[in-house]
Amino acid sequence: MDRPDWIAVDWGTSRLRAWAMSADGRPVAQAESEQGMGGLAPDAFEPALLALVGPWLDPDRVTPVVACGMVGARQGWIEAAYRAVPCPPLGPPLTRAPARDPRIAVSIVPGLSQARPSADVMRGEETQVAGVLAAAPDWDGVVCLPGTHSKWAEVSAGEVVSFRSFMTGEMFAWLSTGSVLRHGMAGTGWDERAFDSGVSDGMSRPEWLTARLFTLRAEGLLAGLPPDAARARLSGLLIGTELAAARAWWLGRDVVIVGEGTLAGLYARALRAQGIAARQVAAEDAVLAGLTRARALAAGA
Amino acid sequence: MDRPDWIAVDWGTSRLRAWAMSADGRPVAQAESEQGMGGLAPDAFEPALLALVGPWLDPDRVTPVVACGMVGARQGWIEAAYRAVPCPPLGPPLTRAPARDPRIAVSIVPGLSQARPSADVMRGEETQVAGVLAAAPDWDGVVCLPGTHSKWAEVSAGEVVSFRSFMTGEMFAWLSTGSVLRHGMAGTGWDERAFDSGVSDGMSRPEWLTARLFTLRAEGLLAGLPPDAARARLSGLLIGTELAAARAWWLGRDVVIVGEGTLAGLYARALRAQGIAARQVAAEDAVLAGLTRARALAAGA
Repeated sequence: MDRPDWIAVDWGTSRLRAWAMSADGRPVAQAESEQGMGGLAPDAFEPALLALVGPWLDPDRVTPVVACGMVGARQGWIEAAYRAVPCPPLGPPLTRAPARDPRIAVSIVPGLSQARPSADVMRGEETQVAGVLAAAPDWDGVVCLPGTHSKWAEVSAGEVVSFRSFMTGEMFAWLSTGSVLRHGMAGTGWDERAFDSGVSDGMSRPEWLTARLFTLRAEGLLAGLPPDAARARLSGLLIGTELAAARAWWLGRDVVIVGEGTLAGLYARALRAQGIAARQVAAEDAVLAGLTRARALAAGA
Repeated sequence: MDRPDWIAVDWGTSRLRAWAMSADGRPVAQAESEQGMGGLAPDAFEPALLALVGPWLDPDRVTPVVACGMVGARQGWIEAAYRAVPCPPLGPPLTRAPARDPRIAVSIVPGLSQARPSADVMRGEETQVAGVLAAAPDWDGVVCLPGTHSKWAEVSAGEVVSFRSFMTGEMFAWLSTGSVLRHGMAGTGWDERAFDSGVSDGMSRPEWLTARLFTLRAEGLLAGLPPDAARARLSGLLIGTELAAARAWWLGRDVVIVGEGTLAGLYARALRAQGIAARQVAAEDAVLAGLTRARALAAGA
């Protein structure tokens, strides 16, 4: 393989992904590991990165590395201070990480913060939003970013105007595997109708969420609710409750969902039931387009 | 000590409590252990009980033991089939547990189930409700039972008419110690004003719960929200959201809260802010009064 022009890195809490990028902006190789930020002490980041991208490096040249995500958190490699919205999703300065290996120069993309109307933060999603905008610089609308902490970001005139995070993904993971509900959720099956009814219930009188959760357990005990239906209804309840709160973000708006996997598909399905035809953008495409923009910033272009 | 007339047992998921009861209905000794139902195989229940109450037993007489709680669950000592509401909180038959030791005869109180309007179950709380009614047989009102899965039970004409459970307590435990929010909640302090503002927020637009949870994290990162305030506001948000959903249970109703500890006090405080002067009944008094009623049933009285 040719040596990459630069290396794009998406470094989240639980996973590290890297792409070798050609000079014309294409990923020519990809690698990933479980060396997420969550398990690394500050001095373990450089070794974790080199273990993954070492084979791509040119011994006679400095290869730029541009990274986004939790790698820039206070507990990460080095803190990349938040930029406050409203602002473009990416902007200078990027933060230089203290790498000792002379073959790499690592820049970290800062996350975004919001003080009002509610305190909020993101790290990594700003790069995906930038990727969405890279393909359509004049686009105004709302970007929905499903995940552990799902986010809705309002974009206008090239800026993130405001955003809001929900603990939906982290709650689903705990409720389905760690809470009392886990007893009725073995296996991996899925009942689409149960998901749809969960969304519908969640959107209607969302204040009942914590009671409806217990109902799943009771239906398992009393009526033999199948695990596939219980798990899907749980997901629907959480996403439906999120949609109820986020109604102003999507009602009558142009919505882009970042992601093409199962979770993003569920958000698309739930919005479709509300008459919203959200466009889905692949997360990898969005993050690479965003990191490519950040690479231009890092190079001072 | 005199040998007890009978033994009252409250056997929950994480704890086992027993009282030696005199013939005139007073507790004359008390013992407890961490041998909750959650950690015991079916054949481990009798040894766990004997380890606790063995010293109270008369070798020449069978001592009746009456137990309520998760001990009667499917994964407990022996399943005590639910009784369906509407029904009195206690009623025959009690379930006989298979004890081999000739010195004890163990009866287990069945829990209550509800099929409509929403599936629900309780084990243990029915005994506390019976205890509340023992002191006031003609009382009509609503019993609020804070706990891991808090419950609201409507009582009329000596029967539990309906009830509803919320996952509030289990969610608080996980959110404050297991979720991303744990980072901002170290220590054990408490900020009453933050609790009150959490209740107020939770009651107003409760659909925002999962977003407001993340706001606690963001305020910790951006504004240095103190752990005492973060933990108290989390509690207030969850209880306020529960009160918003349960409004029909308490608005204009005569409410009794079972419990006198910290958690019950928080429910009382939150209701007081809504103009509801709930009466608090000590949980131990309620469960002992209820088990005394169950003892009469077990004896065929």
